[in-house]
Amino acid sequence: MNRAQRRIAEGILFTDMYQITMAQMYFRHGLHNKRVQFDHFYRANPSYGKHEAGFCVNAGLEWLLDWMKDARFRDKDVGYLRNHKARKSGKLLFEEDFLQYLLEYGNFDNITLRAIPEGRVVHPNVPLTTVQGPFAIAQILESPLLNFLNYQTLVATKAARIHVAGKGRPLLEFGLRRAQGLGTLAGTRAALIGGADFSSNAGISYALGNAPRGTHAHCMVQAFMALGYTELDAFRAYADVYPDDCLLLVDTINTLESGLPNAIKVFEGLRKKGHEPVGVRLDSGDLAYLAIQSAKMLNKAGFEDAVIVLSNALDELVIWQIVTQIREEAAQNDVDPDNLVNRLVYGVGTGLITSEGASALDGVYKLVAIEKDGELFPAMKLSGAKEKILNPGHKKIWRIYDTRGKATADLIALYDEDIPNRDKITIHHPIEHTKKRTLLKSDISQIEELQVDILKDGKLVYDLPTLEEIRETRKRDIDRLDPGVKRFVNPHFYHVSLSNNLWETKEELVKKLKS
Amino acid sequence: MNRAQRRIAEGILFTDMYQITMAQMYFRHGLHNKRVQFDHFYRANPSYGKHEAGFCVNAGLEWLLDWMKDARFRDKDVGYLRNHKARKSGKLLFEEDFLQYLLEYGNFDNITLRAIPEGRVVHPNVPLTTVQGPFAIAQILESPLLNFLNYQTLVATKAARIHVAGKGRPLLEFGLRRAQGLGTLAGTRAALIGGADFSSNAGISYALGNAPRGTHAHCMVQAFMALGYTELDAFRAYADVYPDDCLLLVDTINTLESGLPNAIKVFEGLRKKGHEPVGVRLDSGDLAYLAIQSAKMLNKAGFEDAVIVLSNALDELVIWQIVTQIREEAAQNDVDPDNLVNRLVYGVGTGLITSEGASALDGVYKLVAIEKDGELFPAMKLSGAKEKILNPGHKKIWRIYDTRGKATADLIALYDEDIPNRDKITIHHPIEHTKKRTLLKSDISQIEELQVDILKDGKLVYDLPTLEEIRETRKRDIDRLDPGVKRFVNPHFYHVSLSNNLWETKEELVKKLKS
Repeated sequence: MNRAQRRIAEGILFTDMYQITMAQMYFRHGLHNKRVQFDHFYRANPSYGKHEAGFCVNAGLEWLLDWMKDARFRDKDVGYLRNHKARKSGKLLFEEDFLQYLLEYGNFDNITLRAIPEGRVVHPNVPLTTVQGPFAIAQILESPLLNFLNYQTLVATKAARIHVAGKGRPLLEFGLRRAQGLGTLAGTRAALIGGADFSSNAGISYALGNAPRGTHAHCMVQAFMALGYTELDAFRAYADVYPDDCLLLVDTINTLESGLPNAIKVFEGLRKKGHEPVGVRLDSGDLAYLAIQSAKMLNKAGFEDAVIVLSNALDELVIWQIVTQIREEAAQNDVDPDNLVNRLVYGVGTGLITSEGASALDGVYKLVAIEKDGELFPAMKLSGAKEKILNPGHKKIWRIYDTRGKATADLIALYDEDIPNRDKITIHHPIEHTKKRTLLKSDISQIEELQVDILKDGKLVYDLPTLEEIRETRKRDIDRLDPGVKRFVNPHFYHVSLSNNLWETKEELVKKLKS
Repeated sequence: MNRAQRRIAEGILFTDMYQITMAQMYFRHGLHNKRVQFDHFYRANPSYGKHEAGFCVNAGLEWLLDWMKDARFRDKDVGYLRNHKARKSGKLLFEEDFLQYLLEYGNFDNITLRAIPEGRVVHPNVPLTTVQGPFAIAQILESPLLNFLNYQTLVATKAARIHVAGKGRPLLEFGLRRAQGLGTLAGTRAALIGGADFSSNAGISYALGNAPRGTHAHCMVQAFMALGYTELDAFRAYADVYPDDCLLLVDTINTLESGLPNAIKVFEGLRKKGHEPVGVRLDSGDLAYLAIQSAKMLNKAGFEDAVIVLSNALDELVIWQIVTQIREEAAQNDVDPDNLVNRLVYGVGTGLITSEGASALDGVYKLVAIEKDGELFPAMKLSGAKEKILNPGHKKIWRIYDTRGKATADLIALYDEDIPNRDKITIHHPIEHTKKRTLLKSDISQIEELQVDILKDGKLVYDLPTLEEIRETRKRDIDRLDPGVKRFVNPHFYHVSLSNNLWETKEELVKKLKS
């Protein structure tokens, strides 16, 4: 893609064509300036085939806002539309008055946006983002908004799971070579939000203020061997240059017979000169077995602090299995299991950046209110599938914590309901008539509102948190999840409920629409 | 991501950190200017779980070249490296002489690149791209090269399969909202190369000179209903604005009871005014059944030419199933099956842009030769897994067509072997000693070389084909595949073989390395 192509492809036309054809239709019928509300939410946590998530980690908002700030219809954009021809007649599809309207008002200066902040744990059917603004413009925003938010939330979630599986040990993201082109940049950021501590991707890591990590590849050893040298020579040459950053990949020839003994020789040399090695990386074979044997050899040589980096087709299940196996087998090999688990570092490429097994999040953007007689009027779409019936109108989202301090439910309520000051709160199952429960004040340690004001009429009214702050938010939220919700397989189902008033409003609307 | 971040993240630092640390190590030991050759190839066709590809469609080269042209170490890039600290000591990791070297030579002006053109059908283990140049620079190129080529090839391949399943009928790509951020732009291009005819993504479609397509969403109908109007009102309002581009989504309420009858009313109105409708879109329910019933109703009303667009969680298997079911059941419903299949159009989102089921291609970039005594000397890495042993040295790739004009094998040979002028060609199975076959001149209708010269010492020596030309290349190559190779499930295994001379060279090297 050359620069001219990028200017067009990454600007306001980074949207689906039908948003623009609908916008002209609204314009022609005088609906384009009607104030509307769209809710963005996802319907189901990612299912990875054999396992599934019990929650998601919200991510992507800052990059959406960066895009919205710059994106507007400029002459070049409108120029393309001006030449667009109808399928059947070859006549021009867009008329000049609409194009002039786009040039003047085709931007996000009148959009009001509330959202759940990045890094927060979120759940299905909860509005993560709420957009209010003129119908035509809010419509055009649908595709880019979903693009920016779906993928980052997907990857942040995967990273959180992998991080939980690794017992919080450092996680390195290195999926650049297998990612979707430049999409990898969003993926790296999302991984860092969700659970990765570092990325191998140099540019985006520096750009985000989180220095990249990396060591060497097999190719380095192989080049030395092709030139008549040995693996040990290659290790020595590397340690020479990086005496204080020496992490050696030990499986080019044979991990236990060649790589490890050679690495230990080099580490001993380093120590004599007053340097401490970082550790070794294992990239093939039975990683649990090799980690135990490597720890044993490193310990015997006096390198109890050297880390052991594991990589090669990892994901949360594989890591879970490795940790389990180490816990069961390390002691028989005279290796302390906890010590070993606490010196492991994980490098994850493809599995993380592509969210392997669930390569997309099903986030949607649905019209829930439209201006009628000067007021926002709840809108909904009936559906054959009960669970697809929308929660209409303007709403607030509350998270309720139990007396242990764990999140027990998210409650979707009407915007003006005063939830925190009630003596008891009845929460309804979103679909089943008969299912509800009542929470007393004494059951509740805290109630907090989840959405915050982000844009008011296009103006940023939110202090964007740093990446580090977003990571702290995620850690705090994951700590406040019930362990059952964090299970990798068959996680406990977290309650997302409706308030009494929202429940009744919805019932009435359904009745009206069916009549 | 703001603009300053993008400049860093999308420039020369769009690579993995270890490429740069290795580059400094080569620099320090005087290896950085040694001429080397890396081969890029993939090991296995994508497997989507229940089904798998028998071939790939090569894509991504032009965008890699665009990136390489601009990417070079500039002051800002080097500035980040200059401040990078070693893990153990906090001392600076990169020394000034290396950084100066990067500023002066850290670009691709000395890279020579041969590649198989975009749009060509390709197979596992065949070098798709061959890079020669100074060791340090060719090393840094690994990650971006794989990023640009892996993903586009993955999606072009998925698009080709979906296009084959749809019997060549128009295929619309609309994955923007579920793709990996800006990676969707590469995905759209790849989809168009591989088999899609249009995309819904406005900007990239215009940028590529392939106008986007789109109609309307459920939301439009839903908005009209919230305002007290009906589905029919919404359809009329839409047809009013787009009389020559009228494609109506008919499943907002009920496809057969409401959407279709209303669409037909609107189409009749259009025809009275001298316009022809485009057709209808079905986005839920049993698409095979509904397509048959829709065709029946449209035919009865005299709209035999109206297209029927199918969308909603499609992929090659679902489309194959729909076409099969139509062929089996349409006639019982007084609908001509061939006529119906030939008026279908497919819209595919998530399944295509994420290559659902196989979200990454395993393309690798391997050192196969390194300068020694002034000459390129074959390099290889032994591996426990036989199939992972490299094909060393500089090579040419030939495709051999049988007397039917179908491709029968790809042959990897030494660079200077004169394959086309032999009376008979012995081709070896790449791994199994005993497996080989001999092709006589009379068995062969054509032999062609697959790689072409792209860059010579950084200079483009290749006329970049247009998107349309790349699409033609793909169509021609897919026509020349044996039908068995195109099967969706259990495809016939296409032969990728080694020449006698390459086979012997490899054997000798393995013997030497093992001794």
